[in-house]
Amino acid sequence: MNIVDLRNEKNILSVVKEKLQRHGNKLNEVEKLVENIIIDVKENKDKALLRMMKDFDKVEVESLKVDKEDIKKAYENVDKDFLEVLKESKDNIEKYHKNQKYSHFDMDEGRKRLTQKVTPIERVGLYIPGGKSPYPSTVLMNAVPAKVAGVKEIALITPPNKEGKVNENILAAAYLCGVDEIYLSGGAGAIAALAYGTETIKPVYKICGPGNLFVAEAKRKVYGDVDIDMLAGPSEVLVIADEKSDPKFVAADLLSQAEHDENAACILVTTSEDLAGKVKEEVNNQLKELSKVDIATKSVENYGIIFVVDNIDEAFEVSNEIAPEHLELSLEEPFDYIDKVQNAGTVFMGEYTPEPVGDYFAGSNHTIPTSGKAKFYSPLSTYDFLKRTSIVYYSKEELTKQKDKIIKFANKEGLTAHAKAIERRFE
Amino acid sequence: MNIVDLRNEKNILSVVKEKLQRHGNKLNEVEKLVENIIIDVKENKDKALLRMMKDFDKVEVESLKVDKEDIKKAYENVDKDFLEVLKESKDNIEKYHKNQKYSHFDMDEGRKRLTQKVTPIERVGLYIPGGKSPYPSTVLMNAVPAKVAGVKEIALITPPNKEGKVNENILAAAYLCGVDEIYLSGGAGAIAALAYGTETIKPVYKICGPGNLFVAEAKRKVYGDVDIDMLAGPSEVLVIADEKSDPKFVAADLLSQAEHDENAACILVTTSEDLAGKVKEEVNNQLKELSKVDIATKSVENYGIIFVVDNIDEAFEVSNEIAPEHLELSLEEPFDYIDKVQNAGTVFMGEYTPEPVGDYFAGSNHTIPTSGKAKFYSPLSTYDFLKRTSIVYYSKEELTKQKDKIIKFANKEGLTAHAKAIERRFE
Repeated sequence: MNIVDLRNEKNILSVVKEKLQRHGNKLNEVEKLVENIIIDVKENKDKALLRMMKDFDKVEVESLKVDKEDIKKAYENVDKDFLEVLKESKDNIEKYHKNQKYSHFDMDEGRKRLTQKVTPIERVGLYIPGGKSPYPSTVLMNAVPAKVAGVKEIALITPPNKEGKVNENILAAAYLCGVDEIYLSGGAGAIAALAYGTETIKPVYKICGPGNLFVAEAKRKVYGDVDIDMLAGPSEVLVIADEKSDPKFVAADLLSQAEHDENAACILVTTSEDLAGKVKEEVNNQLKELSKVDIATKSVENYGIIFVVDNIDEAFEVSNEIAPEHLELSLEEPFDYIDKVQNAGTVFMGEYTPEPVGDYFAGSNHTIPTSGKAKFYSPLSTYDFLKRTSIVYYSKEELTKQKDKIIKFANKEGLTAHAKAIERRFE
Repeated sequence: MNIVDLRNEKNILSVVKEKLQRHGNKLNEVEKLVENIIIDVKENKDKALLRMMKDFDKVEVESLKVDKEDIKKAYENVDKDFLEVLKESKDNIEKYHKNQKYSHFDMDEGRKRLTQKVTPIERVGLYIPGGKSPYPSTVLMNAVPAKVAGVKEIALITPPNKEGKVNENILAAAYLCGVDEIYLSGGAGAIAALAYGTETIKPVYKICGPGNLFVAEAKRKVYGDVDIDMLAGPSEVLVIADEKSDPKFVAADLLSQAEHDENAACILVTTSEDLAGKVKEEVNNQLKELSKVDIATKSVENYGIIFVVDNIDEAFEVSNEIAPEHLELSLEEPFDYIDKVQNAGTVFMGEYTPEPVGDYFAGSNHTIPTSGKAKFYSPLSTYDFLKRTSIVYYSKEELTKQKDKIIKFANKEGLTAHAKAIERRFE
């Protein structure tokens, strides 16, 4: 990990930006490939999906739809201790997400009434990656908010393993969440199938869930025809720590991000030069003990960085500029600093709240804006599965009172048929 | 207008879908052109914008930034009666949008605490079309919710007229809303400038506002690097009416949509064959009196349609499938039917709430999902200018209690460094 001393820099934010440039992920070849896949699925539907699985994934399956009995069986056979953990995690997620509902409101003045009506999106699709990373936590984090919102139909799609089956833990988590419509397919083809439908798969109105470059590009392309949750880039953790922080804990937390992906970034911002050195050493020591040592090493080499700053305000300035997906405040009284957080996805408070607490268990959502997008995106939520309708009512009396103003406004914009729509009522 | 009798159709929704196919708007040439414009602006910044204005709009301007004094002057010189209307409309919009805030919540159990923190997006950009349609109402509908949300910096960008100036009503509306950062530029170049910045224009985190094909395609392309409000397609109104409805009013309302755009759709769904015929006749008569007769005629020819259905439930079935931007319930007791509305942007209730009431004055937002996108999008709102951060705190005691479950979950997913981040705290 490189240590970058910002204490004598005049424009610290420009140094931070420069140091944290990550490779643009979108490649022209990917774009072209994904476009062709989408056209293929639109034209050949089921056949295209089956062919792609055969060609790319070397798997032949008889049906794109997973049998409901198989989903139930997976649930019944899952490791019982793990099932208890899944259930408790689901309950926690449910509790948190029940707070996230748009308020229905009604401004009723008799002659005039304005209402906001809130309804769930009727049908959504969840993309759940397979391959080396079939994560049941991803099922919980997407399906639970959808259910809390009241979504009627949830279609889950996921690439099968070499045997043409879905990972048992994914099935068990889906069953637990009440998702019983599961399809086999991965990558851009799966996204196209959810967006435009096939013989087997009814199209959805919104697609959520993480995925590789192809999945992300496909989501970008279908966006507008359906809604999507967000476009994710490579992920990151940023730890703010001072001289009292334990370098072992800080290093372990940085590495928990690094094991995800070679492009993941782990960043420490500290007021203590001493801590910076110790964390660097700890990272090197702990790295060797990890099962995903290769990925983590590359991530640390590529995007592992320690910024040393003058004071805690500067630390937050750096953090707000980076707008990290995960922000850990490894500080003694973390709640004293919460007002300084302007841009961050999720904040983990104090030395005993490492990131995995939120990834798996606490109840907040682990789908969080990455790569600085917390400046404008928010974590996935119940709101994402709801939509709002405005309801406007004017009585004849009220329209009589206001008509001249509305007519004036319409005419100022040259939209005379708009003005006429009012005038005709009083002819 | 074509009258389509659905009363003997078995699958009415498939007929509706077929009849309402609108031309796909996205063209390959547009895509390529927009891509080149974005690259140009990224590379040549201000110079690119100035050159494009000279080449495409035949306007040479000295500065991209509108002088603050000019904005103030436009406000001071605006037609006083119109200013009163603008002010009242702004007040109404403010009142409505103040109801739209995410609730900050705090689940504090002492040893465990989960909070949702809500903050405004720091800097947003508003694209306001110019040319033949400089609409001050668009300024109000975008700037007011941003202000209500607490956005600190609002940058407005709009193409200049032939004299290199911004329409005075746009400037006045901007001044009224407290927007004093205004730039000259139109089309895809303006969107690129907001997203990536130039020497004069500081980049924004979110771009809102309507525009032509080029603007829409540019918004699609920058989406992900910044957030956008939504992708709009051609607009529509759908009126549900029965035998008691006044055909004059219905026809006028259909035409108020038709004058917008040749691709706009005006749709009547009625239980009365008699009304269908009368509205058709009225549309033909009223058409001739419109100032935008050419546009409206084409729109009616292209996408004007009357569906006759068996009963009122079928009418709502058709409407929910179309998911109209504007839905008018031209029915005697409209509130009796509101539960039947599943997919619609804004509902206008009863015979005295024609669409312009909401376009200009009532207080709800007139940026509404078009072309069926109300199945997943919502009207523009205060929420669109806010973002949420999750805050998670576990005490040492709480982590001690839960650690084994979290470790089990992490290990099940093969993310051992996640498990280690917990374990190291208890070594």
